[in-house]
Amino acid sequence: MAAAGLDALLLTTEPEVRWVTGFLTRFWESPTRPWFVAVPAAGDPVAVIPAIGAHLMRQGWVRDIRTWRSPDLSDDGVSLVAEALREVVPRGGRIGVPSGAESHLRMPLDDWARLKAAAERDFVADGAVMRRLRLVKSEAEIAKIAHACGMAERAFARVGEIARGGMALSRVFRDFQRLCLEEGADWVPYLAGAAKAGGYGDVISPATEAPLSPGDVLMLDTGLVWDGYFCDFDRNFSVGPPGQAVREGHARLIEATAAGFAEARPGRTAAEVFEAMDRVLTGGAGGSDVGRYGHGLGMQLTEWPSLMPDDATVLVPGMVLTLEPGLELAPGKMLVHEENIVVREGGAEWLTGPAGPEMADLQR
Amino acid sequence: MAAAGLDALLLTTEPEVRWVTGFLTRFWESPTRPWFVAVPAAGDPVAVIPAIGAHLMRQGWVRDIRTWRSPDLSDDGVSLVAEALREVVPRGGRIGVPSGAESHLRMPLDDWARLKAAAERDFVADGAVMRRLRLVKSEAEIAKIAHACGMAERAFARVGEIARGGMALSRVFRDFQRLCLEEGADWVPYLAGAAKAGGYGDVISPATEAPLSPGDVLMLDTGLVWDGYFCDFDRNFSVGPPGQAVREGHARLIEATAAGFAEARPGRTAAEVFEAMDRVLTGGAGGSDVGRYGHGLGMQLTEWPSLMPDDATVLVPGMVLTLEPGLELAPGKMLVHEENIVVREGGAEWLTGPAGPEMADLQR
Repeated sequence: MAAAGLDALLLTTEPEVRWVTGFLTRFWESPTRPWFVAVPAAGDPVAVIPAIGAHLMRQGWVRDIRTWRSPDLSDDGVSLVAEALREVVPRGGRIGVPSGAESHLRMPLDDWARLKAAAERDFVADGAVMRRLRLVKSEAEIAKIAHACGMAERAFARVGEIARGGMALSRVFRDFQRLCLEEGADWVPYLAGAAKAGGYGDVISPATEAPLSPGDVLMLDTGLVWDGYFCDFDRNFSVGPPGQAVREGHARLIEATAAGFAEARPGRTAAEVFEAMDRVLTGGAGGSDVGRYGHGLGMQLTEWPSLMPDDATVLVPGMVLTLEPGLELAPGKMLVHEENIVVREGGAEWLTGPAGPEMADLQR
Repeated sequence: MAAAGLDALLLTTEPEVRWVTGFLTRFWESPTRPWFVAVPAAGDPVAVIPAIGAHLMRQGWVRDIRTWRSPDLSDDGVSLVAEALREVVPRGGRIGVPSGAESHLRMPLDDWARLKAAAERDFVADGAVMRRLRLVKSEAEIAKIAHACGMAERAFARVGEIARGGMALSRVFRDFQRLCLEEGADWVPYLAGAAKAGGYGDVISPATEAPLSPGDVLMLDTGLVWDGYFCDFDRNFSVGPPGQAVREGHARLIEATAAGFAEARPGRTAAEVFEAMDRVLTGGAGGSDVGRYGHGLGMQLTEWPSLMPDDATVLVPGMVLTLEPGLELAPGKMLVHEENIVVREGGAEWLTGPAGPEMADLQR
C-alpha cells in the first residue's frame, strides 16, 4: 500500500474479504446485502458487515466488527463504512479499491456514489495490491488446492460407473457431482462439459437431455471446492473407440500440456508458457478465440494470470496455474484438456494426474 | 424504459443477461471475462460477449451477437460495447444501468470509467426497470421454481437416511447435496446450516467436523437449481427428543409462517406480511438483526422484495416469496424456518410442504 500511495484498501467481494478475514460462507450466493472490509495501511482491518454475518465473522481473527441491520433500503451500510473509512484514513488520504482486470465492485452503483460523497476521502485504483497478494499462494493454500485436485481425480477415475452409451448427459452431470461429493468435496460450484461426435461446440454449456452415443467425446470440466479452494480441470472420454482425428487431437493436447509444464518455471512469463503450448498446437499461429491456454487458480475458479500472448506476468514459486490447451478439429468440433500445476523453485509440479495421451474409452 | 426516460439498458450480471437472452451457463463462476447485453428501447438486444460464449449464445433467440477474444488486457470488450451503444442510442441519449438495491455492475471499475468516456452517451440509473421486470414471475418461471422446491422437499424427506447422532456435520452436508442431485437438481449452489444444542448461532455457516449429538437441532437451508431457477427453504431436525424451548419455538415459527401465508395476498405490502409474522414472533416488536422474515426468489437465491418494515412493495399475482421467520430462544440460540410461496389472485399458494409444528426427530 505504501508503494501504491494508499492509506487503506476497501474490499467488497467474496475472495477479497475472505483473503483478509478468513470469512468462509456460501451466503455470498445471496446478492442482497453488501459486505465491506477496510484494511488500513497500518493497524487492524475493520469488518463492516450485515448483522446476519457477525456470529460467523467473530469465529475468525478480525476483532473490529461493525454491523448494521441489513437490508436497509435507506442506508445499507453506507454511512457505517464511510465512518470507518474516515476513522482509519486521514483527511486527504487515498483509499484503494480493486479496479483492474478480473475485479469488480460488489455494491449498488447508487450506494457507491453515496459512499464516495460520505467518506470525504479519495477513492483510487488499488495499484493491483490485491492481485499481487493473491497471485502467489502460501503452502497452506497450495495444500488445499492439491487436496481438491485429488478429490476430482478420484471422481474422474470413477466416471465409468456413471456414464455409458444411452445415458442422458444431464444425468451424467448430476451423477458426476455426486461422485465429487462422495470423494470429499464441500461443494461443486462448477461443472460444464459436452458430449458430441468428434468434438464439441463449446466448453461452457450446461447439460442437455441428449443421450451419450457411440462416437461421442464426453468432456467434463469441474471446479470443486474443499475448504474454500478450487481445483479446475477436465477429462475427455470416448464413447466407444475414438476416431483417428480425436485420438490424434487428444495426444496433441497432452503434448502441448507437457510443453507448458516444462516452460512453467520461475522467471518465465505467462506469455512464454502460452507460446510453448501454441507451438505444439498451431505451430505458433497464436491460439484461438477462447483467448488463452490456462490461468491462475485458488479461491476462485479462474484468477490471474492468463496464459496468453499479452500477459507478461513473470512466474514465481507458489503460483498455481491451469494448463488448458484447446484444438478445433473441424468447424464446431473442439477438444480441450486441462491440468493443474504449481510453480516451484525447480520448475512446475503437477497437482493433478496428469492424463496420458490415450483417451479413456467408456465402453471398454 | 420510456417511462424512465431511457434509450437503452446496459446489463452485465448473470441474471440480467439470462433474463433477456436465455443464456444459461455455470461459466459465470469464472470472474475473468466481462459480458454485456445492450437492450435498446426499440429494436433487438445486442449481446457483446467473449468469443468463448458465442456458440452457446447462438442457441438462444438473440441474433446480434458480437464477440471479441477475451481476456484482452488492453481492451476487454470496452470499445466493442461502446460501439454497440453508440449505434443503438442516439447522441444525447440515456443508457440505464441497474444501480439500486441488490444490484451491482459486473465489470472492472477501470473499464467502467473507460466505457463512460468511449460511449459518448449518458449512463444513468435504470429506474428499477429490471427490478420491476423480474419481480413478477411468468407461469413458466413459477413452474420451474415449484419443480426445484419439489426436489428439495424429497431430499429433506430423506434426511433420516444420512443424518444420525455421531455423524460429522460436514458429512451430513455432503450427503444432503448428494440427495438433492439424486432427486433431480442440476446443481446445488447453496447449502448452509448448523447443528447445536437448543438452537444455533447463525444461519450462514459452512459445516464443521463436529458430530451430531443428542439435543442438537440440525438445520439445513438449501438453494438448489433446476433449469436455472432456485428454491430456497430449510428444515429443522432434532437429534433425539427436542427440549421444551425448541419444541415451542418451532411451533411458533410454523404459526408465524401461517400468519405470513394468510397475509401474502395481492394488494398487501411486503411490510404487512412482515408485521403479520412479527406479531406472532415478538408481539410486534419489529423483528431481529437478521433484518427480515423472507424475500423474493427466482433466478437468484434471494431477490426483491424483502419482508421487512420499510419495504412498501405491493404484492401482485406471480410474485414468488420465501417466508422465513426466526426466533432467538436464548442468546446465541436461534431457530429459523423457511417455506416458499407464490402470490395468486386469491391469495398465497404453497410451493413447498409446508412443515408441521412438530420438529422431526432423527432418532425416532
